Amino acid sequence: MADAEGLRLYGFWRSMAAYRVRVALNLKGLHAQETALNLDAGDQFAPEYLAVNPEGAVPALIEPGHAPITQSMAILEYLEEAYPQVPLLPADPHGRARVRSLCGLIVSDTHPLLTPRVGNYLRETAGLDEAAMRAWRLHWITRCVTAMETRLTRDAATGAFCHGDSVTLADICLASLLAVAKTMGFQPANAPTVTRIVEACEALEAFQKASPSRQTGAPQSASLR
Amino acid sequence: MADAEGLRLYGFWRSMAAYRVRVALNLKGLHAQETALNLDAGDQFAPEYLAVNPEGAVPALIEPGHAPITQSMAILEYLEEAYPQVPLLPADPHGRARVRSLCGLIVSDTHPLLTPRVGNYLRETAGLDEAAMRAWRLHWITRCVTAMETRLTRDAATGAFCHGDSVTLADICLASLLAVAKTMGFQPANAPTVTRIVEACEALEAFQKASPSRQTGAPQSASLR
Repeated sequence: MADAEGLRLYGFWRSMAAYRVRVALNLKGLHAQETALNLDAGDQFAPEYLAVNPEGAVPALIEPGHAPITQSMAILEYLEEAYPQVPLLPADPHGRARVRSLCGLIVSDTHPLLTPRVGNYLRETAGLDEAAMRAWRLHWITRCVTAMETRLTRDAATGAFCHGDSVTLADICLASLLAVAKTMGFQPANAPTVTRIVEACEALEAFQKASPSRQTGAPQSASLR
Repeated sequence: MADAEGLRLYGFWRSMAAYRVRVALNLKGLHAQETALNLDAGDQFAPEYLAVNPEGAVPALIEPGHAPITQSMAILEYLEEAYPQVPLLPADPHGRARVRSLCGLIVSDTHPLLTPRVGNYLRETAGLDEAAMRAWRLHWITRCVTAMETRLTRDAATGAFCHGDSVTLADICLASLLAVAKTMGFQPANAPTVTRIVEACEALEAFQKASPSRQTGAPQSASLR
C-alpha cells in the first residue's frame, strides 16, 4: 500500500471530475490537501498550473515525488491500485467491465459536453445563446440519465448501488453527474432506479463532504448560471 | 486467461472507439468476428442493437455467456485483465496512471465532441452549418494534439511510444484520434512527437489491419464529409 502522506488535489467547486476524486478519497479514508482553482476566472491557464497540467483542466492529484496525475478516471484507477482498502471495483473481470462501462457513459459520453471549455466555445464561437446552451446541457444530461436508467433497470447485477450492494466507481460517476446537474437546476424525471441509487449515495458522508456546495469557492446559494 | 473462442465485436468503419478495440485485439492475437453497423444510416438504433447497447453506440464486445461490454476503455481494460498476453499497460501504478491519463485526454476530452450524435445535434438543433462544424472538429482535434505534444515532449517517460518503447493503450488512443482525423482531412502540424509516435504505430500490422479504410462499409476513397 502506498503512503498517503502529503497528497494534494487541484479542484474546482462544481467540477464533476474533482467531485469524483474527493468521494473516492473520502471512501478510502485518505486526505488530500485541496487547492481550489476558479475555472470561471481562468486560474487553470496560469503558467504555474499549466506546468501541473498542460491541458488546463482539473482535477490533478499530486503525490510527493511523483508526476501529477490528471484525468479523473486515471486518478480513480490509480487510487484503486495504490490504496486497495475499500475496493471500488468488483473482483471479477466482467463485473469490473460493467462498472467501467457505466463510468464511461458518464465520464466520456456526457461530462465532456458539459465542461466550461465546451460551453465557452459554443457561446463565443458558435454563437449559442443562453436558452440554446440550456437546451444543450439538458439534452445530454437527459440522454445519459435515460441510458443509465435502462441499463440499471435491465441488468440483474444492479443492487442497492449500480453494481451489487456496495459503492463502486459507477456510483461515484453517477452521483457526480447528478450533483453537478443539480447546480444547473436539473432534476431527473422518470428515472426511479437512478434516483434511488443517487439518494443512497448522498446518504453517505463520503459523498456529502464532496458535494459542490460544501467546497471552497461555491456561491452561497450554490445555484448556477 | 479467459477463452477467446467466439468473441464478437460490433463496430463501424470510421468509429475511433471500434478502431481502438480492433488494435488491442490484434496486438493480443485475439480474433473477434466483427458486425459492421452503419451509424450514418441509424443501424445503432435498431431494436436488436439497442438490446445489446441501450445507448445506441459502438463498440460492443460480446463474449459467449456474458453480458455485452460497451465503452472502449472498459473493453480495453477488460482485454488487459482477461488476456494479459502482450500487456498494454505498464506494471507500475504511476506508469499506469500516466498512460490512462493520456488515454483520457483523447477518449474523454476529445473523442465525444467528434461523434456523429454530437455532430447531428449541432447541425440539426443548434443550426451549425458545415463550415462551423468543420471549425468545431478542427478546434478540438488541434487542442488535443497540442496538449498531447506538450505532455509527450515534456515527460521523461516518453520513448519510442507514448510510454517507453512498447505500445500501450495511450498509443492506441492517440493513433485512433489521428486515424479518424485523417478521414476528416486533418493532418497535425507542429507536433513532431505526436507525428513520430503515430508513424511508429502505423508501421505495425496490428494498427494497419484496424484502419478505417480497411473496414467493411468504408467508402472507396475513405475520405469523409
